[in-house]
Amino acid sequence: MVGYAFMGRAHSQAWRSVGPFFDPPVRPVMAALAGRTEEKVRAAAAELGWASVETDWKELLRRDDIGLIDICTPGDGHAEIAVAALDAGKHVLCEKPLANSVAEAEAMVAAAERAQARGIRSMVGFNYRRVPAVTLAHKLVAEGRIGTVRHIRAQYLQDWLNDPEAPWSWRVDRDRSGSGALGDIGAHIIDTTQFVTGDSLVGVTALTETFVAERPYPGGTGRGRVTVDDAALFIGRTSRGATASFEATRVAAGRKNSLRFEVNGSKGSLAFDLESMNELWFHDGTADKVEAGFRRILVTEPDHPYIDAWWPPGHVLGYEHSFTHELADLLAAIGEGTDPRPSFADGLQVQRVLAAVEESAARGSGWTSVEGSAS
Amino acid sequence: MVGYAFMGRAHSQAWRSVGPFFDPPVRPVMAALAGRTEEKVRAAAAELGWASVETDWKELLRRDDIGLIDICTPGDGHAEIAVAALDAGKHVLCEKPLANSVAEAEAMVAAAERAQARGIRSMVGFNYRRVPAVTLAHKLVAEGRIGTVRHIRAQYLQDWLNDPEAPWSWRVDRDRSGSGALGDIGAHIIDTTQFVTGDSLVGVTALTETFVAERPYPGGTGRGRVTVDDAALFIGRTSRGATASFEATRVAAGRKNSLRFEVNGSKGSLAFDLESMNELWFHDGTADKVEAGFRRILVTEPDHPYIDAWWPPGHVLGYEHSFTHELADLLAAIGEGTDPRPSFADGLQVQRVLAAVEESAARGSGWTSVEGSAS
Amino acid sequence: MVGYAFMGRAHSQAWRSVGPFFDPPVRPVMAALAGRTEEKVRAAAAELGWASVETDWKELLRRDDIGLIDICTPGDGHAEIAVAALDAGKHVLCEKPLANSVAEAEAMVAAAERAQARGIRSMVGFNYRRVPAVTLAHKLVAEGRIGTVRHIRAQYLQDWLNDPEAPWSWRVDRDRSGSGALGDIGAHIIDTTQFVTGDSLVGVTALTETFVAERPYPGGTGRGRVTVDDAALFIGRTSRGATASFEATRVAAGRKNSLRFEVNGSKGSLAFDLESMNELWFHDGTADKVEAGFRRILVTEPDHPYIDAWWPPGHVLGYEHSFTHELADLLAAIGEGTDPRPSFADGLQVQRVLAAVEESAARGSGWTSVEGSAS
Amino acid sequence: MVGYAFMGRAHSQAWRSVGPFFDPPVRPVMAALAGRTEEKVRAAAAELGWASVETDWKELLRRDDIGLIDICTPGDGHAEIAVAALDAGKHVLCEKPLANSVAEAEAMVAAAERAQARGIRSMVGFNYRRVPAVTLAHKLVAEGRIGTVRHIRAQYLQDWLNDPEAPWSWRVDRDRSGSGALGDIGAHIIDTTQFVTGDSLVGVTALTETFVAERPYPGGTGRGRVTVDDAALFIGRTSRGATASFEATRVAAGRKNSLRFEVNGSKGSLAFDLESMNELWFHDGTADKVEAGFRRILVTEPDHPYIDAWWPPGHVLGYEHSFTHELADLLAAIGEGTDPRPSFADGLQVQRVLAAVEESAARGSGWTSVEGSAS
Repeated sequence: MVGYAFMGRAHSQAWRSVGPFFDPPVRPVMAALAGRTEEKVRAAAAELGWASVETDWKELLRRDDIGLIDICTPGDGHAEIAVAALDAGKHVLCEKPLANSVAEAEAMVAAAERAQARGIRSMVGFNYRRVPAVTLAHKLVAEGRIGTVRHIRAQYLQDWLNDPEAPWSWRVDRDRSGSGALGDIGAHIIDTTQFVTGDSLVGVTALTETFVAERPYPGGTGRGRVTVDDAALFIGRTSRGATASFEATRVAAGRKNSLRFEVNGSKGSLAFDLESMNELWFHDGTADKVEAGFRRILVTEPDHPYIDAWWPPGHVLGYEHSFTHELADLLAAIGEGTDPRPSFADGLQVQRVLAAVEESAARGSGWTSVEGSAS
Repeated sequence: MVGYAFMGRAHSQAWRSVGPFFDPPVRPVMAALAGRTEEKVRAAAAELGWASVETDWKELLRRDDIGLIDICTPGDGHAEIAVAALDAGKHVLCEKPLANSVAEAEAMVAAAERAQARGIRSMVGFNYRRVPAVTLAHKLVAEGRIGTVRHIRAQYLQDWLNDPEAPWSWRVDRDRSGSGALGDIGAHIIDTTQFVTGDSLVGVTALTETFVAERPYPGGTGRGRVTVDDAALFIGRTSRGATASFEATRVAAGRKNSLRFEVNGSKGSLAFDLESMNELWFHDGTADKVEAGFRRILVTEPDHPYIDAWWPPGHVLGYEHSFTHELADLLAAIGEGTDPRPSFADGLQVQRVLAAVEESAARGSGWTSVEGSAS
Repeated sequence: MVGYAFMGRAHSQAWRSVGPFFDPPVRPVMAALAGRTEEKVRAAAAELGWASVETDWKELLRRDDIGLIDICTPGDGHAEIAVAALDAGKHVLCEKPLANSVAEAEAMVAAAERAQARGIRSMVGFNYRRVPAVTLAHKLVAEGRIGTVRHIRAQYLQDWLNDPEAPWSWRVDRDRSGSGALGDIGAHIIDTTQFVTGDSLVGVTALTETFVAERPYPGGTGRGRVTVDDAALFIGRTSRGATASFEATRVAAGRKNSLRFEVNGSKGSLAFDLESMNELWFHDGTADKVEAGFRRILVTEPDHPYIDAWWPPGHVLGYEHSFTHELADLLAAIGEGTDPRPSFADGLQVQRVLAAVEESAARGSGWTSVEGSAS
Repeated sequence: MVGYAFMGRAHSQAWRSVGPFFDPPVRPVMAALAGRTEEKVRAAAAELGWASVETDWKELLRRDDIGLIDICTPGDGHAEIAVAALDAGKHVLCEKPLANSVAEAEAMVAAAERAQARGIRSMVGFNYRRVPAVTLAHKLVAEGRIGTVRHIRAQYLQDWLNDPEAPWSWRVDRDRSGSGALGDIGAHIIDTTQFVTGDSLVGVTALTETFVAERPYPGGTGRGRVTVDDAALFIGRTSRGATASFEATRVAAGRKNSLRFEVNGSKGSLAFDLESMNELWFHDGTADKVEAGFRRILVTEPDHPYIDAWWPPGHVLGYEHSFTHELADLLAAIGEGTDPRPSFADGLQVQRVLAAVEESAARGSGWTSVEGSAS
């Protein structure tokens, strides 16, 4: 694994848990952790349970005991590491967003295709697809339970940058992160709703805003410029004629990690909020009107996605379980010799939506087609 | 009162209730109901409690026993009746949207200004301002409880046109109604959120959609064309720099009358849903983080707006009470010789936002400034 | 009508509204209001819309223009007025609880039976049966949608006496009110859940508590003793073998008027909270487990009880509408020559449950059978 | 660890996770798993990550490499194992309820006291104390934020035995489990609410019910008798004068794992539901009435109990985390040489409440004092 910050910690817990709970065909060994500063990476490896360390990620590619590279670095490092790893014959799991630009993402897709020919698998880490309630939403749409999708409405609301004194970090630096709320959390609602609906955005009109232009450096000396968006809003259309409304923001006071979506179809609707991640709300529009209403499905039954590996009904899961599910599916695919989703191509398509949003916002909210879409 | 359909019934109940509960300085008498068909208007007057009838609304203007005209007709009749009534020296309450076009609305504002000089009052019926939870939201923003507004997010979701066999009516005919979901319910979220925030939209980018192109005539013979939008979405900016996201639709399966908004500010947030109209959700971002959270204020305390006229704490109000509050404020203004809000000028401003939305949607979602705004 | 405080005001609005909305077979005229103090009763009659006044309620019985007596006084006056009115040939609507003792209630039932033989109708005012969501719950149970009832769980939580300085009133005086939270609000949850389930309590074990022993007189001079319970709790069994758990309190901080119940059956469950009175929560236990969950039925559809008289879907009703529905049913029964429910006999049965609760609490929470029940 | 069913799996995940996230002073090693059937225990150890196995738990006590015994067997084995382990100088964590009878629990407390004198620690596994929202509730009460507690109201609702064909297991056999819903889940609400309020039950009146008398054996041959309660209800009083109402049931259709409580105090209230375990609802009764209401605290802030070990705000925890917190506190106590809570004495007190409930139910719901309480 490369990187050991927030994502690295989440992935480590998932690597630790996937064996006991999912009994995958390929049993993972937490072989090595890579990071630049030896002292820090040693401490992290000890804390998180990795057997060895490397201070140069390229060493990981040379080791025969390593079959899979898990990339948990900021977005500006994804392309180089992923392409090299795939070309070196390692399976790759890459955190989202796939890259910081469409060009990088395209290079990664090309590498993934080359690798695939040799049986090497790649996957991008849109973990929220694996929240059981989200996976269930996908299944209900696929089974036609809400009919033709007419409206997609999604928000990802956080507030950790609402305080103007919240410190500067790489996440507000365009060079490192590519964009702000848009790429960090907007990417999640794009992928999640496209996954749920099986539909994709073909064009958008967008605006972005930065409310706090400078932030104090963590050390306490001086302030750094914020070069990314605090919030991004866009509306658009999908390939099958639905409307879509999206908003991603890090300044929505009181909303901590509220990835919400609602999908309205010709026969019913679905609604979800990550802050209540074990619940899916489903309206069956074909029910008798006297008894119809949004029902709260507590997604903890043995027949719900991923649940039979865990606890009895009503015993809820948390944030980190989505990563364990991601690894379970990845290891299953490797074992079966199939290609896991979301693929790098899926990640590229999200990158193209992000690019269309940025382009529209940059040129006064004009309508902008998503590259490669049918529109 | 002119018109006796849905709005006429709601207004009648309000005229009946405002006296006993609010003891207004001017005590209303339900003098006369006007409608085209004598038989029908007589039946309606008997049912709704009006003392006399007229088959020509112009007769109302000639009667000395009538001091106020309440216009409850479809939008295409508003301008003619309102201008004539004001010029005849009658106070006017006009249902929303103020008119079917900006030009009509401008003529109405001119008439309102002429009338004002003679002490004649006019008001447009955006009743949701008078839902106590909405009025309280306005007060909390005005008192600075959420700081500077950064995001406005509003939806008005209904589903009565989701069924393709729901019958044709004047509400889907552009000539009568001006527009579809946009003017009917989109107008409400524009007015309500501008009222709550004290801010106004300066520019938008929009798209509209009609999912069902024809609908059966009520009689059962043939189908009529739908010439208005089923749904309208837009994003925009306000005069004080907030972002705004709006969606109005009549095809959101399972949502019956869900006028929802959330306002995020630098110090806190507010959220509301008309389906739970006695509740306002307030996040005080200045509270200790250990105890902070969105609180459900049950807006039924004596110190809440309008409530001391009604019941003890916890005894909830319904939809129709918003009209009673509207009349209480209108009669208070007439009694005090002041101008009630929302004024016709407020109604014109909403009309201009609606026009900008339609213009943007018509020309491929380009950015469109709201006429008369500072932008 | 006798009495013009809180209940008198609520009933007046219902008498005013029942005609226009329900077109009853007997059209009510608000003929006369009775109260002891002439000045006050005149003011109340003017405010509430009653045509004349009497300072002695017995005069109402002598008037030929009066066909129905609506009793809105404290409980200690119910029996005398109701018996006299029925014997005088007037229909009677009596506020709940029916009386302050079982003996009084028995006398009232006897009078009701005598009157019934002459075509005179009587009804006790458990208005919450007529909240559409509660009526719907009753229908769903009656149709077998939740199977055999196993658990009844009900609370009526208020907090207006949580403040030790809340003033003394007749409602905390045993001589006037009979009991405290028990008779005032406990009576409601007993009647409401027995109505919903069609089942009745046969035995209970109970405890009561008074947290604040004295309260200041409203005038500001001295303090009066509280001789009733602040809270009453009991558990019991029903005639069909369900368990029941009840709690009524006026000191539950933050709960304003929360009459809540949940009923669990062999095939499903129902839940309700009066603070969200337009919603009924229904779990259909026979549904596919993957899709099962409590659904929020917004009880505002034309096919829901009472709704077709009011507004379109999603336009919610308030507290006072339950009284209008009560009158609509009462007037329909008078018009049709049938006996309305809840009858005085229903009120007596509730009184017997209240008596069993008080007896159990008085003798150390021993098991106490409900008089007249099959147990 | 002894036992590897549901609780054994949950504890294993906690042993695996406590090191990386909490960096305890004593770093645990998962040394050995004990169970009767060698084949099964070997498979479980491999799956759950235990280094060795024993088919006789007594062997664990003889091993020098084992310092702590974690007892996850059915209740009938707790006393023998715990007493032997403590006397052998091993720290003990024992699942709840502490024992199947008061006598067993008393013997365990005596062993714990003997062991304590030698620095050996013991703890009973009421894990829900360590749900962060519950721990926060405890802190808010302790800090006086809701004043004097007046009402405790708790339910633990499940529905896995609502289906009459749900199979027979040791959990419905009195000899193995001691009691049914009462000891299994009723014990949790007793401990949890006593922990939150710092108060304890002194007397109760109770009733229990078994709705399904026989259940099919899992193999498919014949039916076994159900010798425990499906549901238990009781009301009571606490040592500080609060009232209490409790209900535990396994037949509440649609409720999967709903441990709910509400505590009303003189200055405020708290409410919690385990199905939404990351939320605590707090009403501050001292707030301005215009702004007061139950607030939803999302208990995921760094300053909330246990959270700084996990994820950023809004990233929710699940059921199993409560066990990790339990172990973190246990290991901290061992490291610091202090006694962890809940102690075996705490477990005994809960056992005495359970015994009082059973006694009251057995003798017709008479009032029954809790042994050892001040009442």
